[in-house]
Amino acid sequence: MLKGHIGMNNTIKTTTIVLAVTLLAFYLTLSGCEQQKIQRYGSVIGLRPEKIEEYKRLHANVWPGVLDMIKQCKIRNYSIYLGELEKDKYYLFSYFEYTGDDFDADMAKMAADPTTQKWWSFCEPCQSPIPTRKEGEWWANMEEVFHCE
Amino acid sequence: MLKGHIGMNNTIKTTTIVLAVTLLAFYLTLSGCEQQKIQRYGSVIGLRPEKIEEYKRLHANVWPGVLDMIKQCKIRNYSIYLGELEKDKYYLFSYFEYTGDDFDADMAKMAADPTTQKWWSFCEPCQSPIPTRKEGEWWANMEEVFHCE
Repeated sequence: MLKGHIGMNNTIKTTTIVLAVTLLAFYLTLSGCEQQKIQRYGSVIGLRPEKIEEYKRLHANVWPGVLDMIKQCKIRNYSIYLGELEKDKYYLFSYFEYTGDDFDADMAKMAADPTTQKWWSFCEPCQSPIPTRKEGEWWANMEEVFHCE
Repeated sequence: MLKGHIGMNNTIKTTTIVLAVTLLAFYLTLSGCEQQKIQRYGSVIGLRPEKIEEYKRLHANVWPGVLDMIKQCKIRNYSIYLGELEKDKYYLFSYFEYTGDDFDADMAKMAADPTTQKWWSFCEPCQSPIPTRKEGEWWANMEEVFHCE
């Protein structure tokens, strides 16, 4: 084989490998960071003043099975805030993001989970649903009036 | 030069280039997706019932300069929800994430922006700060009692 051929073969090989690895780099970058489709939910519920400490204590150490079910039901970035809106009138405000395709089905799955049911049996006596909530709601869903990424 | 040497040189060159591009791939993957340090904020304020439509109309088309300042001040994933907690008692709940290092400085920067000041001159007459807010607050900051990623 001639020297020239060896050089050419190696150049082609090098170019091919560099091209492949570069494409892999772009693929990893794009796929790893792609924006998932998400639906945001904001909800509100009252919190009984005499149950504030119990509610906070429960939520400082949420049971692993409950957290696991939240993830299984494609809920992420879930926060609950506590506010005293008037003297001795407390409310909980929740914000979370849903990344699945069927919110109602995932919520039904969560509601059917025995660990979550047990957990709710501790949380619900602390809460006081707002009188203006829609039929079937516990936490009342709120209207998003603004969002910026 | 001997054939053997040329082959060896090309092998080393190929290996070096592949290694460099692979490292670049990992760098891009990690840096593009790295979890930024963020602080989450939940706040609440009243909304005057007669100003609901005006507030919603304003927030359906927030001025570009206001949105730009929000981004410049390292606020992201910013949502505002509207809830009627009792009959004719309306509240706005906001959730956002701050990715900077000095929240107070960034909020001072936002407050000094003439476009934002003009924007607030339209929003503030719609709002009714809650009586339990801390001194110096307009929107009242709430306590985070739960978060899961």
